[in-house]
Amino acid sequence: MHLQEIYEYVDAHSQEFIGDLVRLVKQPSVSAKGEGMQECAKMVEKMMREVGLSTRIIPEKEGNPVVYGEIKSETSKKTLLFYNHYDVQPPEPLEEWICDPFSGEIRNGKIYGRGVSDNKGNIVSRLKVVQAFLETMGSVPVNIKFVIEGEEEIGSPHLPPVIQKHKNLFSADAAIWEFGGTNRKGRPDVYLGLKGVLSVELRAKGANRDVHSANAPLIPNPAWRLAWALNTLKNDKDEILIDGFYDNVDTPSAEEIECLKTIRYEEEEEKKELGLKEYIHDVSGLDVPKALLYQPTCTINGFLTGYTDKGSKTVLPNKAMAKLDFRLVRRQMPNEIFSKLVRHLKNRGFGDIEVISHGSTEPVKTPITDKFVQTVIKTAEKVYGKEAAVYPTSAGSGPMHLFRNWLGYPVVSVGCGHAESRAHAPNENITAEGFIKGTKFIATLLHEFSVS
Amino acid sequence: MHLQEIYEYVDAHSQEFIGDLVRLVKQPSVSAKGEGMQECAKMVEKMMREVGLSTRIIPEKEGNPVVYGEIKSETSKKTLLFYNHYDVQPPEPLEEWICDPFSGEIRNGKIYGRGVSDNKGNIVSRLKVVQAFLETMGSVPVNIKFVIEGEEEIGSPHLPPVIQKHKNLFSADAAIWEFGGTNRKGRPDVYLGLKGVLSVELRAKGANRDVHSANAPLIPNPAWRLAWALNTLKNDKDEILIDGFYDNVDTPSAEEIECLKTIRYEEEEEKKELGLKEYIHDVSGLDVPKALLYQPTCTINGFLTGYTDKGSKTVLPNKAMAKLDFRLVRRQMPNEIFSKLVRHLKNRGFGDIEVISHGSTEPVKTPITDKFVQTVIKTAEKVYGKEAAVYPTSAGSGPMHLFRNWLGYPVVSVGCGHAESRAHAPNENITAEGFIKGTKFIATLLHEFSVS
Repeated sequence: MHLQEIYEYVDAHSQEFIGDLVRLVKQPSVSAKGEGMQECAKMVEKMMREVGLSTRIIPEKEGNPVVYGEIKSETSKKTLLFYNHYDVQPPEPLEEWICDPFSGEIRNGKIYGRGVSDNKGNIVSRLKVVQAFLETMGSVPVNIKFVIEGEEEIGSPHLPPVIQKHKNLFSADAAIWEFGGTNRKGRPDVYLGLKGVLSVELRAKGANRDVHSANAPLIPNPAWRLAWALNTLKNDKDEILIDGFYDNVDTPSAEEIECLKTIRYEEEEEKKELGLKEYIHDVSGLDVPKALLYQPTCTINGFLTGYTDKGSKTVLPNKAMAKLDFRLVRRQMPNEIFSKLVRHLKNRGFGDIEVISHGSTEPVKTPITDKFVQTVIKTAEKVYGKEAAVYPTSAGSGPMHLFRNWLGYPVVSVGCGHAESRAHAPNENITAEGFIKGTKFIATLLHEFSVS
Repeated sequence: MHLQEIYEYVDAHSQEFIGDLVRLVKQPSVSAKGEGMQECAKMVEKMMREVGLSTRIIPEKEGNPVVYGEIKSETSKKTLLFYNHYDVQPPEPLEEWICDPFSGEIRNGKIYGRGVSDNKGNIVSRLKVVQAFLETMGSVPVNIKFVIEGEEEIGSPHLPPVIQKHKNLFSADAAIWEFGGTNRKGRPDVYLGLKGVLSVELRAKGANRDVHSANAPLIPNPAWRLAWALNTLKNDKDEILIDGFYDNVDTPSAEEIECLKTIRYEEEEEKKELGLKEYIHDVSGLDVPKALLYQPTCTINGFLTGYTDKGSKTVLPNKAMAKLDFRLVRRQMPNEIFSKLVRHLKNRGFGDIEVISHGSTEPVKTPITDKFVQTVIKTAEKVYGKEAAVYPTSAGSGPMHLFRNWLGYPVVSVGCGHAESRAHAPNENITAEGFIKGTKFIATLLHEFSVS
């Protein structure tokens, strides 16, 4: 296997690869709003066919399509599955972007756009690895499967039935998850699991219309009710107060603590970049990755009620809504947390507040001792020339448990982002250099996996 | 004085009067956003001149113009001043309107539009009384002054210096305030005072940009900080917790209690119309007007943070803002309450939250024993043929103290609205019938005042 030939192919075609990425970024695909989903799925399928994969769209009827692609190896019986998603987060707040979030604009070596890091960069990078192998070697080193779904950012509600219905299609020996990158020192990040997530919306109602705020002594205010209800969920010491919330919470093993020590989380750099004097509770050192990876959270993602434009309006609003997400650690199951939340609100006198689920995924991990994990770490360290930062779990979430727990193979997350890729935030970006390097990394990994 | 002749003139010209009102409603004049203020001021001044008043625009440079108009009587030395405002509340939420809020659309005898009740209906009604007297009698029964300002809905920030600078211009023997109407039984409402109001905005800040909510264990969330801060202001028993907030609170006198008894507040009708089972604390009977008129309040007018569109977004927002108003009863001074609020937030560990004032006015009253008050009540009862509902104070607010306390004459509020006029809410309206009746009432009042 002449990896050098692959690297040269990637370098020679880097402008073409970046051009395809920009094309994909220009196609909006905001699953939360249902914008451009079919169009983006078709574009992804077309890109798959262009690089040489055989494709299939599943399901045909329900939710946003899952785009599936595969190619057999002539030399190996091993199968590696790539999990990715073509849907992106909503781009708001638009006024904080330096360019149109669906422009794919390139400035100073960075490609900007909603989804360029999460997750379109990795989609294109991985597809181009297939093209590179086929065009230089005539074959791929292992069997390859792609699962590129369109609902990751809204909790993957339709992926479980798809996996259940097509178990054989998704069988593999190992999987590479959607995201990753390098930290500020150029060390590759390797993630061995995910937190769970539960997204909910709370809605409070008052009168059947807004009224003049002079009526405040008489007319209930749903904005106050929601503010009070939120306060029963988490206090200002950041303690989540829902009965039983912390039951079953996973703590780091001795092995994982050792792993955390090697991360050397770049706290000062991050705080400086975010303009923060301190993290919550002034945590530092080893407590930073410990908090990030092992602490479950309850976050207000959004809150809207009444008049929010310029100046003042003496209105008493008749509805209020808050969006929250809970990040869950291993053994906290989202359906149980949902029930506990509903029960908690009822018990605390807020049974009138409607609780709507916007999707959930379970927490999941692959042990660091797993052979595939070791292959990924070693390959990353070889390609990037630096010690990997190995995270026993990511602070992020996704439907990894479907692959790791249901289908039973190791799953590791690596990718072509960087520390300031700003996923889910304005000015999301990746560097062209990181994109090309990440492509070479995946190519190398296919080879190393084939011979491991 | 042949009032019958005036009434006939008003009836004969009612379509013209309504047409002029619709024209004024069609001119947006949202002071909170600075929309259409100059245009509306000019339109009001033109209408003044058309009915026969001499006019003056003050001040020329600062804030939205105050439109002043006057006409001398040939028969009386008494002067009555009308206080009105041409600015309106923002029309949002737009989706709850049955028509364009700036259309002045007429449906089933009702004229709809932002500001039609608060306060353009009363402006046109009162101006047309001048026209009616001049065209039928050749003179007005008393000297008349109009003060029509453009910043009432934002706390009248520039009216105090105007009054101070032009004290003689605003001298009078009595004033009629901007608002009023009839209740569901057709009884005329008469208001003898106003609550004070203080409008503020609270702003919390986190990192210098939104981040992925996976970072919640480390990155402070301004949405939570604001929710926690709000909870320190008022608990779920509706008790305001700001130190010293209830100092100096005025309670009803024995005379006022007697007055409250005659109101017979239409609680069941109001609750039914608003779709409410109970008022706050299930108050009923005499406790309803007592709460409404004597209880100071703290109302969330608006709250905005993060993602508030469809579905979910796992974002940790970097800013949050809430708009609040405090309604104050007599002897609670808004500047003192502002200082107490700032001090309270600081003492409770929320000194990082920025507090911005969006204007304020003081609480004020004229005693029911005042001779002018008695003239207004008797005239109202004569014109409407029903017992007046006399409110020792309104639950609303405005710059009445400038006239009552600074200039020292009695001020009473009456007008041409009705119980479902929906001031500050979607589908604000008045009835054509109430508008014409209200016009006749003001005409009669001018006469009664001249002979009192």
